[in-house]
Amino acid sequence: MSDKSSNQMWGGRFAAGPDAIMEAINASIGFDKRMAAQDIAGSRAHAAMLAAQGIVTPSDADAMREGLLTVLSEIETGQFAFSTALEDIHMNVEARLKEVIGEPAGRLHTGRSRNDQVATDFRLWVRDQLDAAASGLEALMRALLAQAEAGADWVMPGFTHLQTAQPVTWGHHMMAYVEMFARDLSRVQDARRRMNECPLGAAALAGTSFPIDREMTAKALGFDRPMANSLDAVSDRDFALEFLSVASISAMHLSRMAEELVIWSSAQFRFVTLSDRFSTGSSIMPQKKNPDAAELIRAKIGRIFGANVALMTVMKGLPLAYSKDMQEDKEQVFDAADNWMLALAAMEGMVKDMTANTSVLESAASAGFSTATDLADWLVRTLDLPFREAHHVTGSLVAMAEKKGCDLPDLSLGDMQSVHAAITADVFEVLGVHNSVASRTSYGGTAPVRVREQIARWKEALA
Amino acid sequence: MSDKSSNQMWGGRFAAGPDAIMEAINASIGFDKRMAAQDIAGSRAHAAMLAAQGIVTPSDADAMREGLLTVLSEIETGQFAFSTALEDIHMNVEARLKEVIGEPAGRLHTGRSRNDQVATDFRLWVRDQLDAAASGLEALMRALLAQAEAGADWVMPGFTHLQTAQPVTWGHHMMAYVEMFARDLSRVQDARRRMNECPLGAAALAGTSFPIDREMTAKALGFDRPMANSLDAVSDRDFALEFLSVASISAMHLSRMAEELVIWSSAQFRFVTLSDRFSTGSSIMPQKKNPDAAELIRAKIGRIFGANVALMTVMKGLPLAYSKDMQEDKEQVFDAADNWMLALAAMEGMVKDMTANTSVLESAASAGFSTATDLADWLVRTLDLPFREAHHVTGSLVAMAEKKGCDLPDLSLGDMQSVHAAITADVFEVLGVHNSVASRTSYGGTAPVRVREQIARWKEALA
Amino acid sequence: MSDKSSNQMWGGRFAAGPDAIMEAINASIGFDKRMAAQDIAGSRAHAAMLAAQGIVTPSDADAMREGLLTVLSEIETGQFAFSTALEDIHMNVEARLKEVIGEPAGRLHTGRSRNDQVATDFRLWVRDQLDAAASGLEALMRALLAQAEAGADWVMPGFTHLQTAQPVTWGHHMMAYVEMFARDLSRVQDARRRMNECPLGAAALAGTSFPIDREMTAKALGFDRPMANSLDAVSDRDFALEFLSVASISAMHLSRMAEELVIWSSAQFRFVTLSDRFSTGSSIMPQKKNPDAAELIRAKIGRIFGANVALMTVMKGLPLAYSKDMQEDKEQVFDAADNWMLALAAMEGMVKDMTANTSVLESAASAGFSTATDLADWLVRTLDLPFREAHHVTGSLVAMAEKKGCDLPDLSLGDMQSVHAAITADVFEVLGVHNSVASRTSYGGTAPVRVREQIARWKEALA
Amino acid sequence: MSDKSSNQMWGGRFAAGPDAIMEAINASIGFDKRMAAQDIAGSRAHAAMLAAQGIVTPSDADAMREGLLTVLSEIETGQFAFSTALEDIHMNVEARLKEVIGEPAGRLHTGRSRNDQVATDFRLWVRDQLDAAASGLEALMRALLAQAEAGADWVMPGFTHLQTAQPVTWGHHMMAYVEMFARDLSRVQDARRRMNECPLGAAALAGTSFPIDREMTAKALGFDRPMANSLDAVSDRDFALEFLSVASISAMHLSRMAEELVIWSSAQFRFVTLSDRFSTGSSIMPQKKNPDAAELIRAKIGRIFGANVALMTVMKGLPLAYSKDMQEDKEQVFDAADNWMLALAAMEGMVKDMTANTSVLESAASAGFSTATDLADWLVRTLDLPFREAHHVTGSLVAMAEKKGCDLPDLSLGDMQSVHAAITADVFEVLGVHNSVASRTSYGGTAPVRVREQIARWKEALA
Repeated sequence: MSDKSSNQMWGGRFAAGPDAIMEAINASIGFDKRMAAQDIAGSRAHAAMLAAQGIVTPSDADAMREGLLTVLSEIETGQFAFSTALEDIHMNVEARLKEVIGEPAGRLHTGRSRNDQVATDFRLWVRDQLDAAASGLEALMRALLAQAEAGADWVMPGFTHLQTAQPVTWGHHMMAYVEMFARDLSRVQDARRRMNECPLGAAALAGTSFPIDREMTAKALGFDRPMANSLDAVSDRDFALEFLSVASISAMHLSRMAEELVIWSSAQFRFVTLSDRFSTGSSIMPQKKNPDAAELIRAKIGRIFGANVALMTVMKGLPLAYSKDMQEDKEQVFDAADNWMLALAAMEGMVKDMTANTSVLESAASAGFSTATDLADWLVRTLDLPFREAHHVTGSLVAMAEKKGCDLPDLSLGDMQSVHAAITADVFEVLGVHNSVASRTSYGGTAPVRVREQIARWKEALA
Repeated sequence: MSDKSSNQMWGGRFAAGPDAIMEAINASIGFDKRMAAQDIAGSRAHAAMLAAQGIVTPSDADAMREGLLTVLSEIETGQFAFSTALEDIHMNVEARLKEVIGEPAGRLHTGRSRNDQVATDFRLWVRDQLDAAASGLEALMRALLAQAEAGADWVMPGFTHLQTAQPVTWGHHMMAYVEMFARDLSRVQDARRRMNECPLGAAALAGTSFPIDREMTAKALGFDRPMANSLDAVSDRDFALEFLSVASISAMHLSRMAEELVIWSSAQFRFVTLSDRFSTGSSIMPQKKNPDAAELIRAKIGRIFGANVALMTVMKGLPLAYSKDMQEDKEQVFDAADNWMLALAAMEGMVKDMTANTSVLESAASAGFSTATDLADWLVRTLDLPFREAHHVTGSLVAMAEKKGCDLPDLSLGDMQSVHAAITADVFEVLGVHNSVASRTSYGGTAPVRVREQIARWKEALA
Repeated sequence: MSDKSSNQMWGGRFAAGPDAIMEAINASIGFDKRMAAQDIAGSRAHAAMLAAQGIVTPSDADAMREGLLTVLSEIETGQFAFSTALEDIHMNVEARLKEVIGEPAGRLHTGRSRNDQVATDFRLWVRDQLDAAASGLEALMRALLAQAEAGADWVMPGFTHLQTAQPVTWGHHMMAYVEMFARDLSRVQDARRRMNECPLGAAALAGTSFPIDREMTAKALGFDRPMANSLDAVSDRDFALEFLSVASISAMHLSRMAEELVIWSSAQFRFVTLSDRFSTGSSIMPQKKNPDAAELIRAKIGRIFGANVALMTVMKGLPLAYSKDMQEDKEQVFDAADNWMLALAAMEGMVKDMTANTSVLESAASAGFSTATDLADWLVRTLDLPFREAHHVTGSLVAMAEKKGCDLPDLSLGDMQSVHAAITADVFEVLGVHNSVASRTSYGGTAPVRVREQIARWKEALA
Repeated sequence: MSDKSSNQMWGGRFAAGPDAIMEAINASIGFDKRMAAQDIAGSRAHAAMLAAQGIVTPSDADAMREGLLTVLSEIETGQFAFSTALEDIHMNVEARLKEVIGEPAGRLHTGRSRNDQVATDFRLWVRDQLDAAASGLEALMRALLAQAEAGADWVMPGFTHLQTAQPVTWGHHMMAYVEMFARDLSRVQDARRRMNECPLGAAALAGTSFPIDREMTAKALGFDRPMANSLDAVSDRDFALEFLSVASISAMHLSRMAEELVIWSSAQFRFVTLSDRFSTGSSIMPQKKNPDAAELIRAKIGRIFGANVALMTVMKGLPLAYSKDMQEDKEQVFDAADNWMLALAAMEGMVKDMTANTSVLESAASAGFSTATDLADWLVRTLDLPFREAHHVTGSLVAMAEKKGCDLPDLSLGDMQSVHAAITADVFEVLGVHNSVASRTSYGGTAPVRVREQIARWKEALA
């Protein structure tokens, strides 16, 4: 809606006459020009197929294919004059092709329609974005792996309810996000595989009587196969909705990490220092470094998931096959894709640049009786107490320490034995935070040895 | 995101370096320039107040106020060079003001901050849109009133479950939408009244020690009063969310009416003929008139409500006072406002232009035993049957008519009396569709006399 | 869906036959029984009106009205056997009424239909919830006022971007939430006023030919007037959508405050201590107090706004008048209402119980050069520097303090004058946090004197 | 929230004291009891593993495993007394186990926590629902295949914009939905594969120092592997969000088909007759058959997608690892799953039962110059006209027919040749609707021969 926006910038309400209103609501060239490269690739594949099947002459097809390259070049270099009267990218390109090559341009539209054409263009565009998202996710995972490797044995508080629960390692925390973004990547790959079918040749909605070869155009455009039902081919927008669903879950992961970065860079936490280039300052308070990029990433889930809601609402209850409502699909996906890519890149940059304040992390990890669980586990493991009884003993010892104003490792063995006589000096081995994290060697646990295994696994997977 | 969009039009994923990424995610000038007029109005009011309170000299204030008009004029005539490096509309305007008037420009920002400035600008912008929506709603109501007046006694089927239930009048159906849009208008008015408070002077978040006069700036900008809590003033986005909520419900009403127009203009219904200018044709099937405008209006609820979801998600869980997440508010509101205004204007145009096919409507109204309820009511009213028994008698008569392949008025009095002996010839008066609608004279009912009362009431209200 | 739920609790997929499937999807008695009191109130008002208008005899009306009270009593005491075969609350009540009073029960449904009946019941139910929400909001505001009054001059950090910006007062922060919840209350009042119209008498969709008195039933049920269009009366669900919109914005406010309580009660912030009864502990870590209630309140926006999305999606594109889709309205509103009321009550309880850790708040407020803005403002006010130049001087002084490892008030006058010669000893008066907050006396500012004015204003308003 | 609901049924607002409020907001047993079978299966696997690893004795493990079967049996037979004081299903089961088997019950919780336990239970529950959805989708696809097979060559109008575009076959239209539901099935399978990893053994968040064997419990519970990061294991709800995303897209497909059934069963369309058991009647208008089931299915996308919005909103911005907010996940998924399964079953039933009115379909297909595109294609194919010129000729012929009040096949050859001299009598072969559909033999086209190929392919795939 770029034209309208600029028109309206200073105006009041929409005051134009009926024709202007219809043009404003109906024309899509203001946004679908972003699919020009895809539109031209589709037309070139279609022209080659028409010739191969004897539907147009080879020389006509050559003219079309060359002429389309000329048009593409004009668009890419900014020389193309887009016309709102020609409504959409398809008509803009075809009209210009006619000027460039003359009569053969009129044969290009044989055996297809704008309905399958736009479905093809849009699929190609979304497929490119899925590939871009895969790259962005992998780059972010690599940045997280580097942080994890550097700090595989740095201790920090593991939180539940934003309350210190148990010590964990920095590397372990970073790797939790690797797992999340890996699932996003896996969803991207599934979505790409599922959507990689070609609608071209479905024509308006019923297929065509021309002897077209849909396998050929599908292959030429990198699709795995043509879509199997022409009605479905022109009315399906699942690929866009699945893109938005996948992007939304990924944006949710980004929002969680961004929230942590905002909290961690507060004066009260000081767990990390973000780089200047992903922060903004204040001319008057030079010490103030606002985590703007993190906040904006945290917010992106809004517009990405909002786009998902928008398109789902549009598609609700639409009868087959094509309805004009579906023209509302593209702006939502364009905006969500732009912002997802941007958020991934910004997060990658922030992760690369950020510095963990290891001493703050370690002292926070040690506070708050964070190894109480380790003590309870020791009682179970060593003294064979039932778990619930071990909890009770531990609770008494924590209460004692709290009363004395000290931490658990500061209690004497005598103190310990006054609560449970069988406790031995070995217990002190599990009460330090480094001992604690080192002991959690169960698969997937926070022990540095486990974290390094996961880092190695992922480095290989992303190599 | 217009700059980025054009950059990315041919590019792949976001591949720029950290600085470019930060600029892309952080700068708002790409969209907040739409608030230039509001920003300048706010600054001019602020300058006048600073002088009135003796905080700046009258001559400095005059220079600022004049200089700001110069900047506004440059922007309105397209001569202004917006700079992304200057991030937002506030800095762009202030930097240019400094070039125009020199040193006094540096005193303009006394006693305010960008936090209260953007909140003021955005409120002014949204307030303008509420006024535009009110005008758009009133215009649409007037168009509906004209249709209602023309067809206050045209009969048509009243549907439940898209099945004919009882005959109603065209005017009555049009007036149902008048009620809906009137509620929208009422919500617009409430929202405007509630949001018409001025954040200016809240400064960064805590107020200021300068002796500013917030009543004066509030009045100058048409606000009813200054906001009462400075933290709230810079962190509140209720006015934007309420705008989106109100717009969403209105878009829902538009989607319902649009759905009816799509169905009514199908070959199977043929209840209405839409004008050519709100339809699109097909070069090959000249009889085909696609209700594109109606379909696009039906779809607009998607992006408008999607914007509501987007901003609500952004605001969820944000601590006070200002967070950068809130910068995501404007594009959602801008897009929703543009599309709401456009949909209102398009619907107004369609309603004005559309032609009811009265003969089709009347014969559809007569089909399907649509006056069976009238018969049952007659039995209750005249023969004093309990309602449930009257239903049973009516059911038997409908079954008889169905068996004979005729409609209810085609049964003889003898047929009638064979089911219930007390029926008299008077019954035939309630069985025609015109009699049926004329009889429904309860307040708010479909009788032309009632419909005309409502039309008169609304014409006066909108006069 | 309680019956189905229990059936399915151990089962696999929905394996029942067609009849069971239809019953499961069609019957509403599982949830609409919550409207029994409203249904009976509506029927009693209708019966009285039928008699007053001579449509039924006074003795029949008396029998109906007495019988309905009997049915209500049976339901309230748990003696009523709801029947799924009777589909909904209306049929359940009417069938039982017939058993209780016999033949006259068959006359109750004269001049109405289930379409206007359910619309009336649901409006009455929603109206009760609006009243309950008003009470809940007022109670929460009172709890906030008490906190504000206690701490009108306690200083704490005012945050932007979760970074310390300027000192504010505890009372000021509490009052920001009072403003938010006051806007919620205002929206509740507007919604109630707008929705307080009676659909009863719209009948199926077209009104009725019985000489009913809709003013009388409207008044009897506490409505301001009957709805003016019968088609609109049975197809309108704006009142439910507006309820959900208002509840959603309020839940957003609750989520923001809950987020602050979660962050504030972390070991790193320690700004507040929540009471035990709104926290949960851990048997093993007695010092761990999890802010469960705050977290659950933070989450409630999900289901409340999810309900808004659900019903908006349902209503999108529905043709007039009644469609069965609209039966999906009630469960969403019931669930949202329950959770809104619960969240308001829980927040009120938490606010009443929480303890501000004033010394932690004050020392956090003093850290981080939080009075740098005060210094800059002093330079403008006292030395008449342009604002932008004052910022520059302040920046230099903060840099100097940072280099010396001290805070701004710790610099000597000589230090100050080395940056700007005109600075005098008076400057130190604005550098303490108490001086800072006391100086922000602009309307709505954080100065205790201003905060107390606002407290007084609101105490009077809520008296 | 069942307890509260019943309490509130007659009450006003939430008026209980703090303890009751906390219990109401905190306890989950009201809904998480639906996961009892999963909880017990998880505990039995855990007990077996503890014994295999020597962490508990074989006899203790046997006692636990037997005792858990006893508890399960009590729950399944309705003999179990759930306690809100015990908060959740885990504590309810464990407390009862202690009563049944005594001391060994206290050892069951060794090496795990409620955080990994609830994540395991919920995954198992969701996995069951994915399997149920797969069955439901396959059953629906089979019902559609049966309809497609019966009507592979019945002609009907193919619509775009709800305007007749070209004739298609009934079988082709049915198969379009088969493609949609097949994509849903494919998404279900991908989601199941991705989520089939076991969180058990992640313990509270950091793993454990007990020598547990996570592979063993994962295998015992049918998972492919244990999750690789313990923090992620307890904080991940992607599996629930992906379930809701997949269900939402499927519900969108259902809403589209339901919309068609509602429109098709209107008096104006009469394309299909729905069976009585999926319709409701009216006692007074026996001919009125309301498509209630279709309408309710159309509406289900509301609550299913609303649940998606709800949970996405909850998860937005949550720091790691477990927060109590996440307790809001289950009710949303339970409700969405129930309604998705129900909608699939109801749609399967309706499709099985519905009757196509073939003569209405065929005459609708023939109306409106629906074979104009066939004429244009013939001109291109036979006379080698460029496509755009062929469109022009066709347009002239349609205009001529419209003027004469006849359809295209009714024009004489002379008429045809007056517009383009080279037209031959062969043209008439493409102008009938049966010829039209038979000619569209491109892959995926509507020709019966193509439709039968697709039916065969899918029957084999579903065999």
